[in-house]
Amino acid sequence: MELLKKTINNIKSLDKDAMSEASKRQDILTKPKGSLGRLEELSVQIAGIQRRSLPVCDKKAILTFAGDHHVVYEEGIASAPIEITAQMVANFTRGGAAVNILADHCGARVVVIDQGVASEYERAGYIKNKFIAPGAANIAKGPAMSREQAIRALEGGIETVMEELENGLDIIGVGEMGIGNTTPSSAIYSLYTGLEPDVVTGPGAGIDEEIVKRKIEVVKKAIEINKPDKNDAIDVLSKIGGFEIGGMAGAMLGAAANNIPVVVDGFISTAAACLARTLCPGIDDYLILSHHSAETGFIHASNYVGQKPLLDLGLRLGEGTGAALGISIVEASIKALKKMATFEQAGVIDVKEI
Amino acid sequence: MELLKKTINNIKSLDKDAMSEASKRQDILTKPKGSLGRLEELSVQIAGIQRRSLPVCDKKAILTFAGDHHVVYEEGIASAPIEITAQMVANFTRGGAAVNILADHCGARVVVIDQGVASEYERAGYIKNKFIAPGAANIAKGPAMSREQAIRALEGGIETVMEELENGLDIIGVGEMGIGNTTPSSAIYSLYTGLEPDVVTGPGAGIDEEIVKRKIEVVKKAIEINKPDKNDAIDVLSKIGGFEIGGMAGAMLGAAANNIPVVVDGFISTAAACLARTLCPGIDDYLILSHHSAETGFIHASNYVGQKPLLDLGLRLGEGTGAALGISIVEASIKALKKMATFEQAGVIDVKEI
Repeated sequence: MELLKKTINNIKSLDKDAMSEASKRQDILTKPKGSLGRLEELSVQIAGIQRRSLPVCDKKAILTFAGDHHVVYEEGIASAPIEITAQMVANFTRGGAAVNILADHCGARVVVIDQGVASEYERAGYIKNKFIAPGAANIAKGPAMSREQAIRALEGGIETVMEELENGLDIIGVGEMGIGNTTPSSAIYSLYTGLEPDVVTGPGAGIDEEIVKRKIEVVKKAIEINKPDKNDAIDVLSKIGGFEIGGMAGAMLGAAANNIPVVVDGFISTAAACLARTLCPGIDDYLILSHHSAETGFIHASNYVGQKPLLDLGLRLGEGTGAALGISIVEASIKALKKMATFEQAGVIDVKEI
Repeated sequence: MELLKKTINNIKSLDKDAMSEASKRQDILTKPKGSLGRLEELSVQIAGIQRRSLPVCDKKAILTFAGDHHVVYEEGIASAPIEITAQMVANFTRGGAAVNILADHCGARVVVIDQGVASEYERAGYIKNKFIAPGAANIAKGPAMSREQAIRALEGGIETVMEELENGLDIIGVGEMGIGNTTPSSAIYSLYTGLEPDVVTGPGAGIDEEIVKRKIEVVKKAIEINKPDKNDAIDVLSKIGGFEIGGMAGAMLGAAANNIPVVVDGFISTAAACLARTLCPGIDDYLILSHHSAETGFIHASNYVGQKPLLDLGLRLGEGTGAALGISIVEASIKALKKMATFEQAGVIDVKEI
């Protein structure tokens, strides 16, 4: 609990001076004022987060947190066998998954963190061990984990960021792997947005209509039985969350405490953002939603977080795939801010000055 | 006219076999079927265009066509002095403009083509000379150019692609530089969509409300006076177009004839797409709209072309900046198709097979 408290206390509001300087620079670059739209806003936001008017985006990491969810097996709503989580984690370490390819495309390393994978798997490559338990318990019948485990999940995310600082870290993306984790995420969304479970519950990786109906009932039951206190994120995480959801929320806090921008992946990661912002409302300024998940109800989650995601490409894979594409857009925004010629340098008339 | 005809005749329908093979491969990669959304569709489309089931995206070029527009000066609706076009072209050759930075970010070279820049400028770097005349004439009073010049503009674009083939070309982006070119573009949109000029005319790079009203009148007049025949793209280009708009339309045709996908930039480039698809309806399959321009009325243009753009970042700069970001997304889609592990390779259970 000490690490969590200390981390939250270390999160400052953004550096207004750096933002103002970045913004002023945008206005003297060779383009109509504001014509790079969201790219300009991003570059100014990152300046504020990194507390430097010319931000950097060289060292990048996608942190992919993994954990299982027994609720979907015990309630018969799983899209895939529980072994898939472990098999995909192994796939990450061998570089064969979508997140590996897209992270490589944006120049980021992939860091895989096992917080609660239920099945055995061959640890062929490097995996960060922040293991708490073999899968979150059935939230339709009781809490996902103990309060103490929830704190460990959050602190596992914070520790991951602190450890990765040593390898250089200018920006992170957070993503996840965990068959069944749209179910706790939908429960978290229903709780925070106040919307009925059927509005924020969808087919996840692919279950048919009948099973979606059952899934909606499971989400309802999880909230009714556990009665999570939405003002206490640790209570919410322990009752209707999952280990990897806690890890992602912790990583967001850990990054913010170290002036590192966080690109949030999709449906599950945004549920983690709901927890992180409950623990520390100021975290919003450090988050960038990468893409509009194709999963039902995502729009309500992004509205709740108060952001329009950068991309809308119909992705619904998770892992950090959308975050990787988002990081590339953020890097482009920083390069434009740093490298474009000013009107004076280029000998171009500044129309505003006429 | 011979080159234009020959080029159009060389445009084939996409290779269905390559698309089918790419699509089948997507279904055995380690992810839920369809979960990479638009990325999967893109990779299949590019397979069809390049006529290979595993497409390539190594050699990339942004072709930035430049030309001026006397209409905005003679009618008093310009957002900037005419010299800016030339100054920005010079900026492109020195690598200081937004398109240079974003093209570099996506690994593309920038090729600048002067088809109708009115002002003198220092040709500090390499510029492709396809010059026709120093700016398109006032379309509120008569045609922008002769029919013969329109054909030369189109063929200049085709030639550019043919010449660039020698430097290697797997994909192109098309963009433009020309102060005032939202005016002919809005006229082209009004003509093709059948919508009133006020629906498709906006502030461009930045003119105030009063001048936008005058601009709408100019767009109306351009159509009334010139009476372009929307079924004859050369007529449209010559009467209400611009040299760089013709160049871009030609580049689209030239790329398609050589099995090269075309990432279309924004407002002006999509106007060029309206011309290209009139000359050759099959061209649609070769085009990828990169971003939703912030310029008023763009949504009607993208609907007319029948595509949802990849990005919506509030850009309204042109040059090929959106196309560069779009190329990066396309390349990501190709890398995922080619490099991801299959279920069999990764030892991951294929849920479909259970």
